[in-house]
Amino acid sequence: MKEKGPLTTCIRQVLGGVSDAQLNKVKQYMKQFTAHSFADTATGAVLQDAVSSQGKMIRPRLVIMAGSFGKRYAEAEERLYKAAALIEMTHSASLIHDDIVDEAPLRRGKPSVQRRYGKSAAVYAGDFLMSRITYHLMQEGLMQSGMVLAKAVEAMCAGEITQALCRYRADVTLAEYLQNIYGKTVALFRAACRMGALESGCDESLIRRLENVGEALGYMFQMRDDLLDFLPVTEQIGKASHQDFREGIYTMPVLYACETPQGRKMLRPYMERSVQGCLTGQDIAEMERQVAALGGMERTWQAIREQQKKAERILADLPSHSASPQLLKLVRKLGCL
Amino acid sequence: MKEKGPLTTCIRQVLGGVSDAQLNKVKQYMKQFTAHSFADTATGAVLQDAVSSQGKMIRPRLVIMAGSFGKRYAEAEERLYKAAALIEMTHSASLIHDDIVDEAPLRRGKPSVQRRYGKSAAVYAGDFLMSRITYHLMQEGLMQSGMVLAKAVEAMCAGEITQALCRYRADVTLAEYLQNIYGKTVALFRAACRMGALESGCDESLIRRLENVGEALGYMFQMRDDLLDFLPVTEQIGKASHQDFREGIYTMPVLYACETPQGRKMLRPYMERSVQGCLTGQDIAEMERQVAALGGMERTWQAIREQQKKAERILADLPSHSASPQLLKLVRKLGCL
Repeated sequence: MKEKGPLTTCIRQVLGGVSDAQLNKVKQYMKQFTAHSFADTATGAVLQDAVSSQGKMIRPRLVIMAGSFGKRYAEAEERLYKAAALIEMTHSASLIHDDIVDEAPLRRGKPSVQRRYGKSAAVYAGDFLMSRITYHLMQEGLMQSGMVLAKAVEAMCAGEITQALCRYRADVTLAEYLQNIYGKTVALFRAACRMGALESGCDESLIRRLENVGEALGYMFQMRDDLLDFLPVTEQIGKASHQDFREGIYTMPVLYACETPQGRKMLRPYMERSVQGCLTGQDIAEMERQVAALGGMERTWQAIREQQKKAERILADLPSHSASPQLLKLVRKLGCL
Repeated sequence: MKEKGPLTTCIRQVLGGVSDAQLNKVKQYMKQFTAHSFADTATGAVLQDAVSSQGKMIRPRLVIMAGSFGKRYAEAEERLYKAAALIEMTHSASLIHDDIVDEAPLRRGKPSVQRRYGKSAAVYAGDFLMSRITYHLMQEGLMQSGMVLAKAVEAMCAGEITQALCRYRADVTLAEYLQNIYGKTVALFRAACRMGALESGCDESLIRRLENVGEALGYMFQMRDDLLDFLPVTEQIGKASHQDFREGIYTMPVLYACETPQGRKMLRPYMERSVQGCLTGQDIAEMERQVAALGGMERTWQAIREQQKKAERILADLPSHSASPQLLKLVRKLGCL
């Protein structure tokens, strides 16, 4: 769920299909849903801090784009903005809890809630936000979206738990990696499309196709994020160099590089040093070079392209619609560096 | 939210008014609501572990007792068991997250989720459970209960956040203490009564009175818990001696003892040593002696008695009902050592 600077910028450009006026509506609901009787208290300060730092709002945009395919779009518009606000709040809550586990000092360029207010505030600010989301899903009568969202959060938690149990395991498989990133990123992208499609009255076949587009986008997004870690540092701004590898989270480029006995043998020493926490800068550079030489980056690109083709095939079959070119543009943007 | 051995035992005896058959129904729903497709996975193991360790089920019992006052009790019975299961699951989820903050090694005599599976699993197992609760509230159509429950969780989080910000503050006030324990304990007791009363069709006046009984019981429960820390160790089994004081959480007996300038002067050195983390066993014994001499224990008992009188007054005015004597018995039990 890490978010990189350059990727954020280009996705913002590509997602121009959702208007600023629409996004402002979403932001208004976020503000309204988090305003509360604790406004002038410490709890209020922690919360405002947590939700005011906004990212690229990709999940709300997906809700709105998928929602625009529905026959009840016009009447469902406000509901879509509310659902979009609640999925973004869910994302924010998940980031607060991720930062506890990662002990991350920064989030979106600002000190994380944990760093700023302590672990206790971070645990309970995340929980507070989740219960506020539950309350408003119920109050706004967004039951169908709420059940989709709750199931996505489950998948996110399961993905994080299994990822934690995979840490520092040199024998982690590609299937396990895919399962972990499904939870980390894909589940919520998928849920965004399903929520939008459901609320605006798409039929079940269209809902499935739109959620499959969301799923492919989610995989592309996370795989691309993991691949960006392997680009030379000079091409990346604000890049945390191989934080995942240092923390024993072996991503797709490493796992592809380890598919042959030779690859495993070459990379095993670096994995062992990540366990011991004694990786040097030179180790990292050498590991990166070997992953590239063993084809790990190239094969990750191929995997991204496969998701791209899948998404393009689904989009080609969708009813002709003003949101289709925007979704296609996003898919293509994620399919090239 | 700590739970003491002897208190648990006497509350179990007193709450005999709810039958084993009814509690088994609640436990069945808890099992059903936590069963899932991750059953054979690591996530499943973490979750089963978290919900299998059951306490005295005081909150489910309050849901059922309050619910029995409603005119639609017979038809609402299954809904009450479901709501009762979901409030107990909420309590379990909160305990998992509390243990992250407290870094508690044990919970209900077993290793805490955090100790057993790590911080990451504890954060996400709690979140998983919360989203499972949200899902089932929606699927079972328990909207009114769900909104009450979500608001109670908010209050719990706010209470924990403000308690964390009160830690090690020698000038913390009784008003702040009461606000903190409202969140820690009272809010969920109150919600239990409101949920039961709502689901079984009590009118608003009766709902309010029942939730006020829940509120008084919650205050009594937490104040008594805090007072038990000040009983000589020999009277208590498994007592963590002044864990709160050591961690800079100054409870009612300490705060009453600090009400006079003389009291503040006498206790200040121990508070300072709790900040520095260098309290000796002798310090603790001396602090305890001084709190008693300054009337801190006596006045805490008075505060408990005031809540008792309040609860008894409400109960005396309630419609004559088979659950009334059980509630009165519980109130009286909490009103004496």
